[in-house]
Amino acid sequence: MSERSVIYLDHSATTAVDPRVVEAMLPYFGERYGNASSIHSLGREARQALDEARADVAGILNSSPDEIIFTSCGTESDNLAIRGVARLNRQRGDHIITSRVEHPAVSYTCEQREKQFGFEVTYVPVDEYGRVDPGDVERAITERTVLISIMYANNEVGTIEPISEIGEIARRHNIPFHSDAVQGAGSLSLDVRELNVDLLTLSGHKFYGPKGVGVLYVREGVGLLPIQTGGAHEQNRRAGTENVPYIVGLATALKLVEGRREKESRRLTLLRDRLIDGVLSSIPHCRLMGHPSERLANNANFIFEYVEGEAILLGLDMHGIAASSGSACATGSAEPSHVLLAMGVPHDVAHGSVRMTLGRENTEQDVDRVVEVLPGVVERLRAMSPLYAS
Amino acid sequence: MSERSVIYLDHSATTAVDPRVVEAMLPYFGERYGNASSIHSLGREARQALDEARADVAGILNSSPDEIIFTSCGTESDNLAIRGVARLNRQRGDHIITSRVEHPAVSYTCEQREKQFGFEVTYVPVDEYGRVDPGDVERAITERTVLISIMYANNEVGTIEPISEIGEIARRHNIPFHSDAVQGAGSLSLDVRELNVDLLTLSGHKFYGPKGVGVLYVREGVGLLPIQTGGAHEQNRRAGTENVPYIVGLATALKLVEGRREKESRRLTLLRDRLIDGVLSSIPHCRLMGHPSERLANNANFIFEYVEGEAILLGLDMHGIAASSGSACATGSAEPSHVLLAMGVPHDVAHGSVRMTLGRENTEQDVDRVVEVLPGVVERLRAMSPLYAS
Repeated sequence: MSERSVIYLDHSATTAVDPRVVEAMLPYFGERYGNASSIHSLGREARQALDEARADVAGILNSSPDEIIFTSCGTESDNLAIRGVARLNRQRGDHIITSRVEHPAVSYTCEQREKQFGFEVTYVPVDEYGRVDPGDVERAITERTVLISIMYANNEVGTIEPISEIGEIARRHNIPFHSDAVQGAGSLSLDVRELNVDLLTLSGHKFYGPKGVGVLYVREGVGLLPIQTGGAHEQNRRAGTENVPYIVGLATALKLVEGRREKESRRLTLLRDRLIDGVLSSIPHCRLMGHPSERLANNANFIFEYVEGEAILLGLDMHGIAASSGSACATGSAEPSHVLLAMGVPHDVAHGSVRMTLGRENTEQDVDRVVEVLPGVVERLRAMSPLYAS
Repeated sequence: MSERSVIYLDHSATTAVDPRVVEAMLPYFGERYGNASSIHSLGREARQALDEARADVAGILNSSPDEIIFTSCGTESDNLAIRGVARLNRQRGDHIITSRVEHPAVSYTCEQREKQFGFEVTYVPVDEYGRVDPGDVERAITERTVLISIMYANNEVGTIEPISEIGEIARRHNIPFHSDAVQGAGSLSLDVRELNVDLLTLSGHKFYGPKGVGVLYVREGVGLLPIQTGGAHEQNRRAGTENVPYIVGLATALKLVEGRREKESRRLTLLRDRLIDGVLSSIPHCRLMGHPSERLANNANFIFEYVEGEAILLGLDMHGIAASSGSACATGSAEPSHVLLAMGVPHDVAHGSVRMTLGRENTEQDVDRVVEVLPGVVERLRAMSPLYAS
């Protein structure tokens, strides 16, 4: 059942857990299995592992350990940031600013504030590259604005947003600023002071850690109400027995990617550009989506006119190449990507989107194999398309 | 750093992950790491593992796979049941019935419905053994009651509640009935039809599965609003990339404990009674808390007058015995157990509580060692107590 022969180009959907991360987690399934809230020796041992993991993550974020909340995933972190801050400040205001290209964990959660709790949400537009204009954010601010949430880098098209500038604006207006940085870890700096963020979301499984564990950084002094209630875990901000193995795993994974972040980013950027050049030069009626330079080192997103992205994916899958038509979280939806639509891509063209996201195990050979196979896949599909014939 | 020499009597706080469960999870960290929402082969493989795990859990609960939602823990399952049902039915009614002895994930979540959302909550009392009277539940029902939540077995004193009778009453009045069954798995039947429950909470780490994964059973036809929003995972009821390894692990662990549930329960009941008899006969001013017969096979909860439970725990810890003063989730609280207070135990006496919860690796030798050590620990503490001297 090994899938080692697959060329995996879907690292923005998820990554394999680093064997060193598995090794770091294993003792906490077995002999160090204590509940971190227990006062006996096994409990204290688990607590110590938690404390160390928290300090490690805090160090990489240039924050303090008390500012780190461990959650069950990126989605929960986004929910906690938005719902937690919105609810606490409901008396003070009822306006949230976000963008049109956020992950559903942010955009759908904001929509729910509108539909169920009477908030007003401003969705600032993006340009053709998927970039938010910080000026638009500033102009959207009102006296009633209680939260700004703009992602660090887009999960579909890879565009990096001007977070630090938006954060400066937010700070000037004294409004908490949250950023979903799920796609940033391992590639971009996570220094929360440089980024001027008050809340930041991370997800373990995007950087060779396990699925089912996330981080929410919350700057000291920024209040939020817990959204999961029960015991007094995580300083009364997130109830539930701490998932010690995964928390240790997340911290280990983050340290590992951070340690070779710049080197690996340079390597991936070269691979990415080789892929982009190869695809654009060998396939007609194809264009790169997202910003040409302000983009994630591992992201290539193309639109192939006259074909369906999902059909291309199935064709690639038959050749042992795993890619995506956008966000895995939107799979099964008949709607085209809201990100591409926000960038001004017409509805019918947006269906032809394919995202390839590189990672640690990818090589030049992988890229060359894709560039070899993809033109044929697209050509065969176009040959069957009445649109293309005319 | 091995802790194998510890006599672990805190299985209600958490359990070690069964090595067979770890083995079942390992492939999903490594080569089968796909995102279950991805449409390529790696994604489909992950989806299949999820489907199988869901069918396995559904089988043990005598339910259908569509009725199983995987969550990040028991606390989240409790939150989803209570907040999800309460919010959906807010227009129809604003009254919740629960008991005075619930886990904080239930009781605190109900309190929040009162404080923040204008619900009224009735906390039905318990008798001296911690048992709810189903008649009290029925008498508390009003036209505006939208949810009843009563736990299956108490996490502190081990008392088993008359769930099936309460469920019958709830069904007669057409009110959704939730039960936190976190302490029941591996010991009691989880057949949701026999139990007459509409919603049931399970937590992986209480039955030799991993921490950080739970189940909420939701009977077909019972509606709830999701509390974690984003992607369309878990049939739009719980957003967030599925934690495939832990879900596989939970299902594996549940099958393993269910397979030897009756045999192991008989073994633990004998051990438990040996422990209870040994402690009660060797230590004066000590009594068993919880129901004498309607109690979990693995639970012994004592009150030792004139001493603090936490002091006893530290004394036991020095002898390599791990026990608890009640719920690990309440650690750090200066308040005595709300469960004991609800059972009519005076405030000062309730501080002398010690919970010992047996598990798979415990033997008669372990029990005999506790009965040998504990009298001396209690006696030394009492010798220092001015209360005891007088």
